[in-house]
Amino acid sequence: MDKISKNNNITWFDGYVSRKDRERLHGHKGGLIWFTGLSASGKSTIAHLVEKELHRRGCSTYVFDGDNVRHGLCSDLTFRREDRIENVRRIGEMVKLFVDAGMIVLTAFISPYRQDRQKVRSLLEDGQFLEVYVECPSEVCATRDQKGIYAKAKAGVIKEFTGISAPYEAPENPDIVIHSYKEDASQAARRVIKLIEQYKLIK
Amino acid sequence: MDKISKNNNITWFDGYVSRKDRERLHGHKGGLIWFTGLSASGKSTIAHLVEKELHRRGCSTYVFDGDNVRHGLCSDLTFRREDRIENVRRIGEMVKLFVDAGMIVLTAFISPYRQDRQKVRSLLEDGQFLEVYVECPSEVCATRDQKGIYAKAKAGVIKEFTGISAPYEAPENPDIVIHSYKEDASQAARRVIKLIEQYKLIK
Repeated sequence: MDKISKNNNITWFDGYVSRKDRERLHGHKGGLIWFTGLSASGKSTIAHLVEKELHRRGCSTYVFDGDNVRHGLCSDLTFRREDRIENVRRIGEMVKLFVDAGMIVLTAFISPYRQDRQKVRSLLEDGQFLEVYVECPSEVCATRDQKGIYAKAKAGVIKEFTGISAPYEAPENPDIVIHSYKEDASQAARRVIKLIEQYKLIK
Repeated sequence: MDKISKNNNITWFDGYVSRKDRERLHGHKGGLIWFTGLSASGKSTIAHLVEKELHRRGCSTYVFDGDNVRHGLCSDLTFRREDRIENVRRIGEMVKLFVDAGMIVLTAFISPYRQDRQKVRSLLEDGQFLEVYVECPSEVCATRDQKGIYAKAKAGVIKEFTGISAPYEAPENPDIVIHSYKEDASQAARRVIKLIEQYKLIK
């Protein structure tokens, strides 16, 4: 699809292949499924189960979490408030391009601030952003935590730890709430898939 | 594909869907075609022509250039040396994830420093990174420049402009050289496609 736009007598070239072209090729729309919740609440586990099912259905997918972002794109950032803002900002700008590439992106970041998540939503079109709130009390998260980071946070060894020594602002209007302290991860993943169908990202 | 690795008695989860799974789904390998050259040398034009042909062949593709990166992910950066380093670093880390997502990524950035381009190459596996040097004398680029930025750079209105008031380090061992001052863009695109075939990113 050729798209040439003229502005002040300057010919600007937008490329031949659009998001819609890529979506047609992939057989589904591009979209962002944003998981938010405390550390060890189950965000990553559920996101990967959702990806597994989407891939089985032939969708182009990618999961972002601390592992592939904090060591790369955001390796220069700390967990201070201002760096957390920049962390989520960069992730938002990056995943926007993945969505433009026609992929279904799943992100599993604590992303504790409402305003930061709202900014990511504002980068995308209506229906491209689904917020999944994985709700779990910090006491339950602490019992699951295999890395012992909750114990370290309580002992003050890890500073500014969300839910212990840094705030978590729960979503006010999430697209779906997962109660991961009483809901099985597979069941939660099925509910998220259903939501993705309702939003017509997939058929 | 399940991948559970154990490290110090901590079970670490790498996800169910791997790059190879995504490549199988897309029908081609993930890879990065990195165009480098002066402003108005033709990088973006050729990259978009290559994308058009790859898309026609059913490949999952994406083109990155100043338009979709400088206003988003790198909107906080200037054109000073240290910011140019950070600009290319972020782009490198981001496109690494696109390649891991099984896409063929084409980038059209001046990327004037050899060391910065080398760093991006080092993020990827052998055969995943192809460097395309779009060679064109700055005098020729200036005659093509519809935005008048060369004139502004020569007048000193735009500072630190590559090829005029900032250095450009040509690649020493690019995978292909395009002589865009004497070679037609369509012909150049066909040569790049041939290279991508030789590297077995596509069939």
